[in-house]
Amino acid sequence: MAEIELKEITSRDVDFAKWYTDVCKKAELIDYSSVKGCMIIRPLGYALWESIQKELDKRFKETGHENVYMPMFIPEGLLQKEKDHVEGFAPEVAWVTHGGQEELPEKLCVRPTSETLFCEHYANIVKSYRDLPKLYNQWCSVVRWEKTTRPFLRSREFLWQEGHTIHATKEEAMEETKKMLNVYAQFCEEVLAIPVVKGEKTPKEKFAGAENTYTIEALMYDGVALQSGTSHYFGDNFAKAFNMKFMDKDNKEKYVYQTSWGVSTRIIGALIMTHSDDHGLVLPPNIAPTKVVIVPIGKGNEEVIEKAYDIAKGLKLRGISVSIDDSEKSPGFRFAENEMKGIPVRIEIGPKDIENNLCVLCRRDTLEKVRVELPEAEDEVEKLLADIQNDMLDRARTRRDSMTRSVLTLDEMKAEIEKQNGFIKAYWCGDLDCELKVKEVAGVTSRCIPFDEDNNDGKCCVCGKPAAHLVYWGKQY
Amino acid sequence: MAEIELKEITSRDVDFAKWYTDVCKKAELIDYSSVKGCMIIRPLGYALWESIQKELDKRFKETGHENVYMPMFIPEGLLQKEKDHVEGFAPEVAWVTHGGQEELPEKLCVRPTSETLFCEHYANIVKSYRDLPKLYNQWCSVVRWEKTTRPFLRSREFLWQEGHTIHATKEEAMEETKKMLNVYAQFCEEVLAIPVVKGEKTPKEKFAGAENTYTIEALMYDGVALQSGTSHYFGDNFAKAFNMKFMDKDNKEKYVYQTSWGVSTRIIGALIMTHSDDHGLVLPPNIAPTKVVIVPIGKGNEEVIEKAYDIAKGLKLRGISVSIDDSEKSPGFRFAENEMKGIPVRIEIGPKDIENNLCVLCRRDTLEKVRVELPEAEDEVEKLLADIQNDMLDRARTRRDSMTRSVLTLDEMKAEIEKQNGFIKAYWCGDLDCELKVKEVAGVTSRCIPFDEDNNDGKCCVCGKPAAHLVYWGKQY
Repeated sequence: MAEIELKEITSRDVDFAKWYTDVCKKAELIDYSSVKGCMIIRPLGYALWESIQKELDKRFKETGHENVYMPMFIPEGLLQKEKDHVEGFAPEVAWVTHGGQEELPEKLCVRPTSETLFCEHYANIVKSYRDLPKLYNQWCSVVRWEKTTRPFLRSREFLWQEGHTIHATKEEAMEETKKMLNVYAQFCEEVLAIPVVKGEKTPKEKFAGAENTYTIEALMYDGVALQSGTSHYFGDNFAKAFNMKFMDKDNKEKYVYQTSWGVSTRIIGALIMTHSDDHGLVLPPNIAPTKVVIVPIGKGNEEVIEKAYDIAKGLKLRGISVSIDDSEKSPGFRFAENEMKGIPVRIEIGPKDIENNLCVLCRRDTLEKVRVELPEAEDEVEKLLADIQNDMLDRARTRRDSMTRSVLTLDEMKAEIEKQNGFIKAYWCGDLDCELKVKEVAGVTSRCIPFDEDNNDGKCCVCGKPAAHLVYWGKQY
Repeated sequence: MAEIELKEITSRDVDFAKWYTDVCKKAELIDYSSVKGCMIIRPLGYALWESIQKELDKRFKETGHENVYMPMFIPEGLLQKEKDHVEGFAPEVAWVTHGGQEELPEKLCVRPTSETLFCEHYANIVKSYRDLPKLYNQWCSVVRWEKTTRPFLRSREFLWQEGHTIHATKEEAMEETKKMLNVYAQFCEEVLAIPVVKGEKTPKEKFAGAENTYTIEALMYDGVALQSGTSHYFGDNFAKAFNMKFMDKDNKEKYVYQTSWGVSTRIIGALIMTHSDDHGLVLPPNIAPTKVVIVPIGKGNEEVIEKAYDIAKGLKLRGISVSIDDSEKSPGFRFAENEMKGIPVRIEIGPKDIENNLCVLCRRDTLEKVRVELPEAEDEVEKLLADIQNDMLDRARTRRDSMTRSVLTLDEMKAEIEKQNGFIKAYWCGDLDCELKVKEVAGVTSRCIPFDEDNNDGKCCVCGKPAAHLVYWGKQY
């Protein structure tokens, strides 16, 4: 029965959306329940999130951040304190109206994000410049009442981290905003093997209440962009709304400057849609909960089993996570099952291999097999894992680059997008009207103004006026 | 100003409840917000929870458990599937009635516990004996709409882990239930230095929907008991309500047997009320996020600062977490501040010490100071940390034992409890009426029937009939 299930996966070139859902289900990352619009994150999906948490949390702590936990409820009055923020979020929150048997005097929303709670707390604990900066982060779940949902990409409840920091100066807050975006970008490339474009959101696309929103944008296999992490600079907008003041060295009372930044379980969607294939999940070794699976062949052959455990022990001593799949199922079935789960390297070993002092290494990303001498197996696995990690990033980058094109006019943009999805680079004058026109005509939105933009002599692709910015445009998840 | 705050702590022998809240606030473990009945867990409080999570999670994984994440909402209909369970929880849940701008067709409760969701999921994914056991755990927050709240002890929202497992046989499920209780007990004693009594709850005190509830009960400094972790055996109650069946080896369809077990941020309350004192928090080294603080004395003395960093480096190389407090504040103030935060060992070092090749170690639990030769400082710190851990457990056990008394009659029980709070051991016939009578007369409830009970020839302390059990009675948090 499970064998039938394995074969059911849709090809990603036939129906990408269905392929994606198939991978999420068949690799046992998620399941559905009677809770509409929410997902169950199953052991492999959650192990991925734990790997992501571990890697990001280490980076947050290295950059001086501390974890805290805020209540999951926000009273209506508190949410309403910052005008733009409430306008952005109120339409999509879940409301608690009853506690126990009683109706609440003030309804509570289930946090869609926690700026308001952090602001209230900071206003309470910060008095002097000596108390600054405060560099807090929170790991939690948040709720946004989405109408249409998809595993990891858009779910009524999702897991994330939200960093919230306050600073004595504008410069320091801006530096923090960009520093954390770089932490995200580096994490994506080094750990998830996902190349990203770093840039700034246009005013239309920025976060509700922010002065500037910075983003990392990744391009999925189907050429659709996925916003993979954002970092916001708030200036003193919330500080004024929440009265977050401090006594500075010069004995003057001043407002603090603020940032927030977040990455969510959405990034697991990016991971899947960047690397996986028609055999299922493909995981970069640096994030894979299990890096190697050993499949002994030849039922009950003690020598084979013993050798498998020897290799496993050797790999564990090198800090490489490994499992042995010695279940009753046929080798072919076990191969397919472990491919579905994306384990980066499979070691196949049977009685004949042992006679010849060999084993077979199969890399998940390319499905290529190599025979290696048994005494060198552990060294070879270690090298192979590093190669896979590098190759996965290279392939993703090459594909992304091949799908990124520059155009000068809106007509060209329309033609290019109709040919193939991807990033379209084009100049923009900065006017909202032209941004809306691009959406209307070419069906794409501004993804970001890249940090390394070169807009010396461009003309807006819509109106032809001098460009304010070079913009990455694209369809988006 | 902060100095004034430090002095404000109430003595624990004068007003234990106020002392407790003072410690939570002044050691900066928690803060309040406009979200009534919920707490903000501040960096030190959350770091404690992270230490607890790390230690428990390691033990869960070593015993074969996997982490998952279930939705935070439970539809009303799903919650109602098991009769006893819904009766136990429905009166104290928070209800989401609106999502976005619309009223929901079915209201959702914010999970007070997740048995129902796990059951639905298990019914969905388990078909055969080959799929068993399923050993899942979840780290999350839960909500119970309490009327009166106290930091960590009783809060409308709290953090916890909930293990949910299903098994092919009764025996295996019962073994799991007891195994996890032992994991908790061992964790409390080895890591938190909290001695616990392991036992079973009486039917009146067991979990809503469980056949048996096992508990670890700790005794706080004021002689009031705190239930610190529970493990439940459900038999096939939920299996029948949720149709959790599997095809067994004998080709017969059978119901699964089920357990659940949990520890929450409540345990931080137990940690505080077991060990802390009038100077603030006292943390056992095995759970302290920072084990050692170095306080250099003598402003701007470079030799001192350099030596402080040398020692810090040496301790870090041994895997001992350490911080240096070289702030501008006076040494006395810094001593008090770090005592408030419960750091197990303080190293004081000044210019004179360096001349004499010495430094001072001060242990937080007893406030005793010893002078040690500088070259031996790291060895001495390591030994001292081990001593503190052992001594804290010993002291807590001695106190617990001195507050534990055996009585034969209800009158004696009343007299003993009026003399001093604590555990009272007394025989009980097993009748609910007698249990209620104890509460009415002596003002205590049954804490547990200890695993090592000896009820050979006891008589019920209330009715005088032959005893079914020896019971620990006490007041409770």
